[in-house]
Amino acid sequence: MRFEQPVALHFISQLIDAEVIGDSNAFATGINELHKVEKGDLVFVDHPKYYEHCIHSAASFIIINKKTDFPEGKALLIVDDPFEAYQTIVNHFRPFIASNKMKSDSAIIGEDSIIFPNVYLGNHVRVGSRCVIHPNAVIMDHCVIGNDVIIQAGTVIGSDAFYYNKKTNRDIYYRKMNSCGRVVIEDAVEIGAGCTVDRGVSGDTVIGAGTKIDNMVHIGHDTVIGKNCLFAAQVAIAGATTIEDNVILWGQVGVSKTLTIGKDAVVYAQSGVGTSLDAGKIYFGTPAEDASVKKRELVWIKRIPELWKKVMDNRS
Amino acid sequence: MRFEQPVALHFISQLIDAEVIGDSNAFATGINELHKVEKGDLVFVDHPKYYEHCIHSAASFIIINKKTDFPEGKALLIVDDPFEAYQTIVNHFRPFIASNKMKSDSAIIGEDSIIFPNVYLGNHVRVGSRCVIHPNAVIMDHCVIGNDVIIQAGTVIGSDAFYYNKKTNRDIYYRKMNSCGRVVIEDAVEIGAGCTVDRGVSGDTVIGAGTKIDNMVHIGHDTVIGKNCLFAAQVAIAGATTIEDNVILWGQVGVSKTLTIGKDAVVYAQSGVGTSLDAGKIYFGTPAEDASVKKRELVWIKRIPELWKKVMDNRS
Amino acid sequence: MRFEQPVALHFISQLIDAEVIGDSNAFATGINELHKVEKGDLVFVDHPKYYEHCIHSAASFIIINKKTDFPEGKALLIVDDPFEAYQTIVNHFRPFIASNKMKSDSAIIGEDSIIFPNVYLGNHVRVGSRCVIHPNAVIMDHCVIGNDVIIQAGTVIGSDAFYYNKKTNRDIYYRKMNSCGRVVIEDAVEIGAGCTVDRGVSGDTVIGAGTKIDNMVHIGHDTVIGKNCLFAAQVAIAGATTIEDNVILWGQVGVSKTLTIGKDAVVYAQSGVGTSLDAGKIYFGTPAEDASVKKRELVWIKRIPELWKKVMDNRS
Repeated sequence: MRFEQPVALHFISQLIDAEVIGDSNAFATGINELHKVEKGDLVFVDHPKYYEHCIHSAASFIIINKKTDFPEGKALLIVDDPFEAYQTIVNHFRPFIASNKMKSDSAIIGEDSIIFPNVYLGNHVRVGSRCVIHPNAVIMDHCVIGNDVIIQAGTVIGSDAFYYNKKTNRDIYYRKMNSCGRVVIEDAVEIGAGCTVDRGVSGDTVIGAGTKIDNMVHIGHDTVIGKNCLFAAQVAIAGATTIEDNVILWGQVGVSKTLTIGKDAVVYAQSGVGTSLDAGKIYFGTPAEDASVKKRELVWIKRIPELWKKVMDNRS
Repeated sequence: MRFEQPVALHFISQLIDAEVIGDSNAFATGINELHKVEKGDLVFVDHPKYYEHCIHSAASFIIINKKTDFPEGKALLIVDDPFEAYQTIVNHFRPFIASNKMKSDSAIIGEDSIIFPNVYLGNHVRVGSRCVIHPNAVIMDHCVIGNDVIIQAGTVIGSDAFYYNKKTNRDIYYRKMNSCGRVVIEDAVEIGAGCTVDRGVSGDTVIGAGTKIDNMVHIGHDTVIGKNCLFAAQVAIAGATTIEDNVILWGQVGVSKTLTIGKDAVVYAQSGVGTSLDAGKIYFGTPAEDASVKKRELVWIKRIPELWKKVMDNRS
Repeated sequence: MRFEQPVALHFISQLIDAEVIGDSNAFATGINELHKVEKGDLVFVDHPKYYEHCIHSAASFIIINKKTDFPEGKALLIVDDPFEAYQTIVNHFRPFIASNKMKSDSAIIGEDSIIFPNVYLGNHVRVGSRCVIHPNAVIMDHCVIGNDVIIQAGTVIGSDAFYYNKKTNRDIYYRKMNSCGRVVIEDAVEIGAGCTVDRGVSGDTVIGAGTKIDNMVHIGHDTVIGKNCLFAAQVAIAGATTIEDNVILWGQVGVSKTLTIGKDAVVYAQSGVGTSLDAGKIYFGTPAEDASVKKRELVWIKRIPELWKKVMDNRS
């Protein structure tokens, strides 16, 4: 999340009751997760395992639960519970205020767009021109929809990320990490019925121009999808994954988190993608591999009985 | 799509600005895709690869982008862009007019049917007698629902087909082909919560009498399902497939497009059906094959280490 | 289903027009399926194959279509069609009365809970304190939601079980068995967008405290889920299954009916669970097995061509 304007570190430190070590006169530009931070950003870390990685990331300001060394030009904000501090910052800068109207007063709809009955448009939602949003679709706060977009019935845009802080020493292990990111849908995207697109935890989930998505497809938080992709029904993509332009995923494909599928790749139905895939190739299987290799493998399996017989013949 | 009454070819040719070659005094009875056309129908073709197939199909009138030979008794309608001509015809004879009411004025509901709050019933929807339609279900334009049908919460009937015209020489590769077909649900069908059933592109998607469908099942456009079928949760069926009577698909089965599953066949959970299946057999696996063959195969795979050892023993 | 207070067997026998054999002055405490019955309960059986099992179950009163021997202290209720008798009892004690309001008059909402627009709350629904229920969610009759629960947009709680009485000697093979159970969601549970949780047929579907569920997850009827479980997107769990505490199911996992997954077990993405799984282990594959065994198997498959070559070399 970018702040609307740079925020004095003094203000942040008071908000989260932190001791500042380093340049306390600096200004923060936003707060982000480790894999997305840029210079000027705040980041938080509460496990010694990630201290080093965090302190040497692009982030300028580290919310942390222990005093430690850090590079020049940065600052530490020492608190007891960095996770709680993160939640406090998110709640302050992007507070959760449920709209009690089907179309919030701050939602903006472009010219010639058709919004069917029973569509929910949350706070600060923007819908472009010539869009069609079918009945019972839900667009949650801050989501941005381009021009010529079609969203079919019952689809949910901007559901919260499935993202938790886990500690097994309390009764309830998982605590929800508040999502402050958005969903950004570019021009000429079409999304089928019964889909869900999660907002980014701290960045944006993006669907590139011209991408077409069939029914019951799930897109996880912070996933970035290129242009002119085609996803068939019941595809599921986990969080923070990158899908480049023109990728085709056939029905019921599952894609794991934080990986990249290269441009023009094709993944056959029901495959499970657990690692990054090269551009321009065709994949199949769980785990997904080169489709021609996988198909040969299926033929080899069928030859095991024949092989067994040969071995038995050899022995006698 | 059948026209309500035969339409003069003169009228069609003016509508799409086409030059007619052949019997221009004829009347067209409807417009359909290649695999569904009948005598009297219009069909369109824009790729030389399909010219021959189209011209020699049952269709009487071919919307085409090149003058070519054709059999007696037919006619060509020459246009620059046959896809655009098809869209124009669909938009004329089945225009998209979004209803702004939860229950459109033209929707008809039979006796003793219960429509829960927040159900959307589009234009010209017909619901039979003694039906129950649970909250937040959506029935889009022209869909027909028989008697004694139950549709559970959040289910969408009549979403648009996932069907595009692709050209990679433009910025946006895929252009939506407007769906003018319907969903027809016969008597005593039950559909679970969170399902999606796409309308036919130019024909009907049909669910046969007595078929029961669990939650989160996706049925693609123009698919025709027989009587007394049973589909468990998260099954997905692609477009224009035929499922005969009494077929059982267990959970998370995926079925590809334009194939046939024969009567009484059973497909075990998570299988992927990529080719037509015989009647009366049991199938398993991705790709789905005879379940007993597949199960033996799984046993053979477990014997590879033993086989390896035997081969090594033979060598020494 | 427990009756609100014990009901005289006389009353039941009149309601379903049954002949009572045995202690007709007894009182019944509820009606349940065979695998859930307790002393004092009614149960029904209509197939000779299950007579013995039913008569010797914990149930005290057996609705049955044939006179037969039975243990002391029990009673038979003889009827022509036990299934119809069951339906009659359910319809009497938990009648289906559709609310025509978005929030039924009998629904109770706890302090500081936020109910977004377009949420349906059925008869006798109870929602605890500090809950958030997002737009277009549906909570059907009698469901109970604890404190600090989050239910995201479009999710359906309390859909009917996918549970039928099958007879192939009638036109419509399957007749819906009316669900009289509930969904009980404990404290601090979070359920993503587009999920469906079926009510119990005669018992309760339960989701234990602190369990977090991603988008598009399906939970079948009478399934009991422990505390602090984590289910990723598009998981599907069939009916009457037990998932113990802290179980993690990754994306698109399918779980069959009436089995148990032991505490702390982890099941990798896209696996298919067809039998009970031990506590504390990691599983993978369809059918799911020990993940390390499965991974070695995948390596062995890749060695078949090498093995083939060795065998051919041995022969020459």
